[in-house]
Amino acid sequence: MPDRVHNFCAGPCTLPLPVLEEVRDEFVNFNDEGMSLIEMSHRARAYDEVHQNAMRLAVEVSGAPDEFGVMFIQGGATLQFAMVPMNLLGNAQRAGYINSGTWGKGAITDAKPHGDIYVAWDGDETGYTRMPHTAELNVEQNTRYLHVTSNETIGGIRMADWPEVDAPLVADMSSDYLSRSIPWEKFDLVYGGVQKNLGPAGMAIVFVRKSILENTSRNIARYLRYDVHHDKDSLFNTPPMFTIYLVGKVLGWMKDKGGLPAIEREAAEKAALLYDTIDASDGYYTSPVDRACRSHMNVVFRLPTEDLEKKFLTDSHGENLVNLKGHRSVGGCRASIYNAMPTSSVKALADFMAEFQRANG
Amino acid sequence: MPDRVHNFCAGPCTLPLPVLEEVRDEFVNFNDEGMSLIEMSHRARAYDEVHQNAMRLAVEVSGAPDEFGVMFIQGGATLQFAMVPMNLLGNAQRAGYINSGTWGKGAITDAKPHGDIYVAWDGDETGYTRMPHTAELNVEQNTRYLHVTSNETIGGIRMADWPEVDAPLVADMSSDYLSRSIPWEKFDLVYGGVQKNLGPAGMAIVFVRKSILENTSRNIARYLRYDVHHDKDSLFNTPPMFTIYLVGKVLGWMKDKGGLPAIEREAAEKAALLYDTIDASDGYYTSPVDRACRSHMNVVFRLPTEDLEKKFLTDSHGENLVNLKGHRSVGGCRASIYNAMPTSSVKALADFMAEFQRANG
Repeated sequence: MPDRVHNFCAGPCTLPLPVLEEVRDEFVNFNDEGMSLIEMSHRARAYDEVHQNAMRLAVEVSGAPDEFGVMFIQGGATLQFAMVPMNLLGNAQRAGYINSGTWGKGAITDAKPHGDIYVAWDGDETGYTRMPHTAELNVEQNTRYLHVTSNETIGGIRMADWPEVDAPLVADMSSDYLSRSIPWEKFDLVYGGVQKNLGPAGMAIVFVRKSILENTSRNIARYLRYDVHHDKDSLFNTPPMFTIYLVGKVLGWMKDKGGLPAIEREAAEKAALLYDTIDASDGYYTSPVDRACRSHMNVVFRLPTEDLEKKFLTDSHGENLVNLKGHRSVGGCRASIYNAMPTSSVKALADFMAEFQRANG
Repeated sequence: MPDRVHNFCAGPCTLPLPVLEEVRDEFVNFNDEGMSLIEMSHRARAYDEVHQNAMRLAVEVSGAPDEFGVMFIQGGATLQFAMVPMNLLGNAQRAGYINSGTWGKGAITDAKPHGDIYVAWDGDETGYTRMPHTAELNVEQNTRYLHVTSNETIGGIRMADWPEVDAPLVADMSSDYLSRSIPWEKFDLVYGGVQKNLGPAGMAIVFVRKSILENTSRNIARYLRYDVHHDKDSLFNTPPMFTIYLVGKVLGWMKDKGGLPAIEREAAEKAALLYDTIDASDGYYTSPVDRACRSHMNVVFRLPTEDLEKKFLTDSHGENLVNLKGHRSVGGCRASIYNAMPTSSVKALADFMAEFQRANG
């Protein structure tokens, strides 16, 4: 393999090369402290600067207003599936969940043991090829929050427009986290694993409306309590320091690129390169996804036959375009083009797709 | 600072330098895959080898018999404080906890919301300067397990002999994890954060007696279920890949050193260098800890006055002996000498202590 491939993996995934090189150079002796960052106390001054810098940048890049606090919590979005209902649901309160695919369904499965949950819309009936319109949502009485998944990694669909409902929204944004602006007024809580757009696996970033922390549950172990993590600046227990350090660097890189507006524009442009190629292929490449819900992060597509899909995967790999296989549960192809995916790599894929069609049409 | 100091931090802490250098060299382009390990799918073949290797080495180095399974779970020992009672306690079952200090107390605090918990022995009465004898333990009827903390990082005490009781033991071994042999027949579950003896912060290793998994709770979110993590080989959700990769390397380094027998012998020798210095000081250095319970990992000691302690910390820092300050809750000095702490560094500290006494006696 060459030093660097075009890596279309669905996550963990491509990170900015300059960030990786910086981390390598700083790895053994951080900040001239005579030790690695990972050998340092999480109470050490040098680490604290790294920690606070990452917290600050998470707020700055996300555009979260003062009403929100940020937390770094281990366990990925999956642990948040449990923590959200555990913390937010009081007696006689219910939560509505949108089942938009694998991840929406996962959130429902994990919330059920911890609260009174109902399905406000079920994408199963339309094969998970789109997100719901507000008018289709069944939001019941005493709904504490409506849970949405902003982007389904496997189905390749995204929530282009947020539901207009009376209940506050809670969103799992893992697979398009900080690739688009967030209308904060709609949300009580936003969370996502960092291992797609923001860093290595091992953590979720959770934004919480501070005012709701007064009413979150206290009758659970401290690690599971939002108020504890928030009060302690995500230093209640030893945090995943290396992950936080790297996330801080990626956020800095995003800021230098122009922040969320620039990232969001570039994401739309990168996605268009591939969707345009699909649309211009006269049905050679097809996408099962409703046009209005096409993900800007995960572009799923099929070829005319499974044999051609196999050849496509083999030939693209030969051109150092790797990890283009669709999720095992749905087959086909998928190009994941997260924040750190260079436009040049997406162009290389679009060119390859056109060339492959010419050669195998 | 020089390239490398003697780092006596209580955790995170010193890791083997050759491991750090290897990680640095492999960081940007892992295994000639054209990407970093942290950019790789957790389902990728190259990562899977890393993952399975770390799991295998955890079993091999710990000496866990076939009856035990191993799991890598995010959230550190602190999340285990919750998961243990959530998974293990059924209806009409109770658990006894030994309050041996800060960590034993933390385990109790976090277990209480999730089960019927009682304190089987309270070290508060003796100032947390020792562990209990079996005869002192109050183990009640219907005790599903007795929870112990093998080593208290802050108090500097260790459980030299395990309790002889009818109930199975569950142990938080975080601060002397895999520095001593484990009598597996006594345990149903053993856990510990990896950030002291085994790698960077961000994960616990949990060993569980497989037969108990049939009766662990199913009515909790999947991330909180031992049976789920175990069934999925710790790949139920995206694991903390970088931490696992590094832990695998540290375990390999331990194996090359001769495994647990050699590590345990060296730990006793390193600790003796410091305790002998304390004992030979004619009361200049004092330890509040019961002799039989002296930790082999965290050596706490006092000097005649707080002013001398301040000078000791300043002067030792000048000799690149760093992070010797005792925990803020107890004051004094503490030298943490985990697995990766070279004997030469401990000798340097012992020599410095003797020299400091001569100069400031």
